[in-house]
Amino acid sequence: MKILFLCGGIGKRMYPLGEDKFLFKFIGKELILHHIDHLKELGLKEEDFVFVCNPVNIEKLKQLCGEDAEYAVQNKPKGMADAVLTAKDLLHGEGILIVNPNDVFEPSAFEKILKKKEGYSVILGHKVDKYFPGGYLIIEEEKIKSIHEKPGEGKEPSNLVNIVVHLHRNSDEFIKYLERTESEQDDVYERTMDQMMKDGFDFRVVEYDGFWTAIKYPWHIFNVMDYFLKKIDTQVLNGIKVPESAKIEENVIIEAGAKIFENVVIKGPAYIGKNCVIGNNSLIRGSHIGDRCVVGYSTEIKHAYIGDDCWFHTNYIGDSIIGNGCSFGSGAVTANFRFDEKNIPVKIENVQIDTELDKLGCIMANNCKVGVNTSIMPGVRIGANSIIGAGTVVTRDLEPNKFLFLKGGQILKENRMELRDKKKERMDRITRG
Amino acid sequence: MKILFLCGGIGKRMYPLGEDKFLFKFIGKELILHHIDHLKELGLKEEDFVFVCNPVNIEKLKQLCGEDAEYAVQNKPKGMADAVLTAKDLLHGEGILIVNPNDVFEPSAFEKILKKKEGYSVILGHKVDKYFPGGYLIIEEEKIKSIHEKPGEGKEPSNLVNIVVHLHRNSDEFIKYLERTESEQDDVYERTMDQMMKDGFDFRVVEYDGFWTAIKYPWHIFNVMDYFLKKIDTQVLNGIKVPESAKIEENVIIEAGAKIFENVVIKGPAYIGKNCVIGNNSLIRGSHIGDRCVVGYSTEIKHAYIGDDCWFHTNYIGDSIIGNGCSFGSGAVTANFRFDEKNIPVKIENVQIDTELDKLGCIMANNCKVGVNTSIMPGVRIGANSIIGAGTVVTRDLEPNKFLFLKGGQILKENRMELRDKKKERMDRITRG
Amino acid sequence: MKILFLCGGIGKRMYPLGEDKFLFKFIGKELILHHIDHLKELGLKEEDFVFVCNPVNIEKLKQLCGEDAEYAVQNKPKGMADAVLTAKDLLHGEGILIVNPNDVFEPSAFEKILKKKEGYSVILGHKVDKYFPGGYLIIEEEKIKSIHEKPGEGKEPSNLVNIVVHLHRNSDEFIKYLERTESEQDDVYERTMDQMMKDGFDFRVVEYDGFWTAIKYPWHIFNVMDYFLKKIDTQVLNGIKVPESAKIEENVIIEAGAKIFENVVIKGPAYIGKNCVIGNNSLIRGSHIGDRCVVGYSTEIKHAYIGDDCWFHTNYIGDSIIGNGCSFGSGAVTANFRFDEKNIPVKIENVQIDTELDKLGCIMANNCKVGVNTSIMPGVRIGANSIIGAGTVVTRDLEPNKFLFLKGGQILKENRMELRDKKKERMDRITRG
Repeated sequence: MKILFLCGGIGKRMYPLGEDKFLFKFIGKELILHHIDHLKELGLKEEDFVFVCNPVNIEKLKQLCGEDAEYAVQNKPKGMADAVLTAKDLLHGEGILIVNPNDVFEPSAFEKILKKKEGYSVILGHKVDKYFPGGYLIIEEEKIKSIHEKPGEGKEPSNLVNIVVHLHRNSDEFIKYLERTESEQDDVYERTMDQMMKDGFDFRVVEYDGFWTAIKYPWHIFNVMDYFLKKIDTQVLNGIKVPESAKIEENVIIEAGAKIFENVVIKGPAYIGKNCVIGNNSLIRGSHIGDRCVVGYSTEIKHAYIGDDCWFHTNYIGDSIIGNGCSFGSGAVTANFRFDEKNIPVKIENVQIDTELDKLGCIMANNCKVGVNTSIMPGVRIGANSIIGAGTVVTRDLEPNKFLFLKGGQILKENRMELRDKKKERMDRITRG
Repeated sequence: MKILFLCGGIGKRMYPLGEDKFLFKFIGKELILHHIDHLKELGLKEEDFVFVCNPVNIEKLKQLCGEDAEYAVQNKPKGMADAVLTAKDLLHGEGILIVNPNDVFEPSAFEKILKKKEGYSVILGHKVDKYFPGGYLIIEEEKIKSIHEKPGEGKEPSNLVNIVVHLHRNSDEFIKYLERTESEQDDVYERTMDQMMKDGFDFRVVEYDGFWTAIKYPWHIFNVMDYFLKKIDTQVLNGIKVPESAKIEENVIIEAGAKIFENVVIKGPAYIGKNCVIGNNSLIRGSHIGDRCVVGYSTEIKHAYIGDDCWFHTNYIGDSIIGNGCSFGSGAVTANFRFDEKNIPVKIENVQIDTELDKLGCIMANNCKVGVNTSIMPGVRIGANSIIGAGTVVTRDLEPNKFLFLKGGQILKENRMELRDKKKERMDRITRG
Repeated sequence: MKILFLCGGIGKRMYPLGEDKFLFKFIGKELILHHIDHLKELGLKEEDFVFVCNPVNIEKLKQLCGEDAEYAVQNKPKGMADAVLTAKDLLHGEGILIVNPNDVFEPSAFEKILKKKEGYSVILGHKVDKYFPGGYLIIEEEKIKSIHEKPGEGKEPSNLVNIVVHLHRNSDEFIKYLERTESEQDDVYERTMDQMMKDGFDFRVVEYDGFWTAIKYPWHIFNVMDYFLKKIDTQVLNGIKVPESAKIEENVIIEAGAKIFENVVIKGPAYIGKNCVIGNNSLIRGSHIGDRCVVGYSTEIKHAYIGDDCWFHTNYIGDSIIGNGCSFGSGAVTANFRFDEKNIPVKIENVQIDTELDKLGCIMANNCKVGVNTSIMPGVRIGANSIIGAGTVVTRDLEPNKFLFLKGGQILKENRMELRDKKKERMDRITRG
């Protein structure tokens, strides 16, 4: 049995974040390593994994997933069929489990599909209770007869949606079929399966009603973050010292090396990476924070995903995704709620997308620097290596490698104010009570 | 005995706040209900109350004061005499106690005047120890001989000022006199009393040296707030949970349903309405906060009157009056002190009024929204339903239903900074201590 | 023995701070009083001190140093020789110890030089381990043969640098030599010593390897502050009350009369002057704060030197020097770190000086006022009595007596937003957890 991870695609809709969604880290490791570790727990070994990469991510993947695994390079992303065919030489007739590593689901999905005895091919069918624009499985007498793509709400032929966790028991035969399919059009993989079903191959479903989400847009990171955070059910503090005045709730993980200062409150679920510094009075809640971050004095981080090596100082970071190596000056704030309380839209390739979130802060790529007293409006996306000057109100997306700052707008006069000094009187007011 | 509340006037000088000052809530109920409850404690019943309303407030008053009371509508505010005459048909020769519900005084004032046996009419005389621009009572042999309006400082004929808590023992006779007074000019009511005194009616004074204030301008709300807060002498927490790290002083009332988070400090006197949320590290002192407010993370509310349903998040709200349903983005601040430390003036109908306050923040009507990192200058008045964009410095009054925001003023360049990364070194500095 | 303090110079490079560096207060007293007290501990008396002043500082010096000491006025600063000659009439052949009071060193330097028996003149020689642009002592057989000014790195003739703590055992003879030296050129004092060495006078060195620094530029205040703070090794609280929730570290001095509020943290080393108020949640670390300061709610003061009578309220003051009588509105912030992480330069008399500090906030003279939500960029110098309006970003130095504020740049429109009210729903989210 080979596990075929489809890692060659390029997630343009993830701008300004990295395109390889499976490389986002959760609870200390990359998403793809979560998949791999779950499969290893089920008995698979490093040499059982085959990665279809692209020229950019192959080195990173090798480094992460080990030299005993096998790697094929898909030079341009041309769909699932092409991805599987790219790995053709690494497959030798054994069973293959094709996995889209940008999907997130419970480990039980792997277990169920690997334990399934019946069927020539087995497809993970996600039980849905409301319409989802995916491929619905049409089942007759326990067998999948066909897949109906996006039937439209109210016209669903079943409540089972196709998830790319597909088991085919003979890779040679499956590849032969793939090669035979007319490839000038789209959806070669889907049409191949359809043809096989028509030709009488026994396609089975494994019904799955656990968590499932796909990362398409940056804000889907929140779904995945929430999924992983929700699993934290006991406190793990790795021997760090917590001052008496600080309060860490039960469902919080803090990795080793952290320094926690006075009056810190961490409300679960929350994850804090290695060697972080959490400064006085800071409040972290429902958030996922990477390694070596400094959450400075009096900062609130609320439902945010923060990369590694980020620095904060007296900030409010709410419902935001912040890349690695970003820093925020004192008083910088992410606004995360519209005055009209509507959902926050994001423009992607000139199309306004409804994020379906009424709370969304900013989405910031790696190595950005934000000046003191800066305000970033809801849903703003900041490209990598960009800098925002002090006091700026950022209302639009910023491309990578930009520097946005205030233009003059000040008046300098002689100070002719007759200054008084009521300090003593005011001091008396204070000290009286 | 009927109690005649004069509720028909329109307080234009209260802009931008509501015109019916007696509807402001203190310690959980409207000012007029405080009057009513004090009178009920002295034996009066709902059916003893008569309200002279205007077309706008009658429904609200009925709802508050009950259907057994009686209501007359004064279509246009035309002074006290007109107000009393409006209620003529509801009066039948019994004694009447005429009360201006926008005045605030101790319940003992009612008690004293109701217990007074002597006199055909009885007037509450407020003992003053410095000049007040009101009507001074001229008394000879225990009887009021005349009232001298605004005699000027140093020319006061007595130290007793006329407060509109007036008892007349026969409403028919008093109304007859009112109707007889020439009504083309102003001050019909005052001239009527003057005529009656001349005609030998026995007017008596009840001397009163307790608290008294009239609400004319918005900032008078502070006087009333301070009066009610000062009466809080024991802690009432209604069974709410207070975290160990929070500190609530003794002279604080918190209504039921509140959630208090870590490190909150509430310094008395203070009142907090029903179902509020007081977020981590927040400090409330000398303030009155309505129902269902959220005082978010690290917010200071100092000597402020806050309506219902307001939201705050990392703000400083000092010496301010905030209407119902307002919200403040993180980092928004009310400046409450001039650089020159002078009293803060407010322009009302084009006249600069000295508020006599050197600490005054903003006066904000209902349903306003304030963006993140906004600064509101001392004494600024914001009309209802107005919105202030992020990062704005508000130096002037805003009319209702406005949207004020920043106009561009930014420069976008390529980022050509040679970025270093001293994070490790800086982290070492921190962790070293 | 007379101690001759050279106090007549004018430190222009100290702009915008006061020119008399020896008047800066550390640990409750002026720098010059530290020198005097150390000398008194070694047996010297008030009448042994001679101050060469200028017309501006003589009164202040008399007031500080006592009427029994002697004072000479140098009308214009014309170098060390002129300074000594100014005091000629106050000297009568006894030994003189010439001290530059703007230098800071351990008291042991005085002790060592006063105990030295040998030599006609004795010079304090600071042992350096890297190049310092000063005068290097050339020594042969225990005697100083010459002083080599700024030899250049790598060309140092010794590791001993001349510090102006100079003992001459016969003032008459020394003055005679001074008067004989050609005074049209510079460095009369240095040339005099050189001539005396050539003439065979026995000049000795006292080697000193303790702390030494000279205050030339404003940011050198940090060196002196750090020196004095480092000496704090036990907590001195002068009987002030510390709330249970506050935490004062061991190496902290708080003078009498302070009020410390809840959740305050003071991390040593730190010094806090008399009658200060430290408000809720404030954090002070590595800082020196003068008398009667109010460090208001939720303020962080980090490695800063703060004068007397300063007021702060929700600020971040980092690596800054703030004069007396300054106040900061809520949300005002000193930025102390460049985006490019380079050292912060300061322009002095049109020359860009590298402060050699990568963390430097602002340098502010006396009696400045800073509005709410103001941002001051790293290294900015603000002249005395200047005011900065709310929301301003200060990127350049400000001269004294200026008023800098924002110019318009706002748009006022009708508010046509369709406002919703999700407050209830949001409140539910909060109270759920």
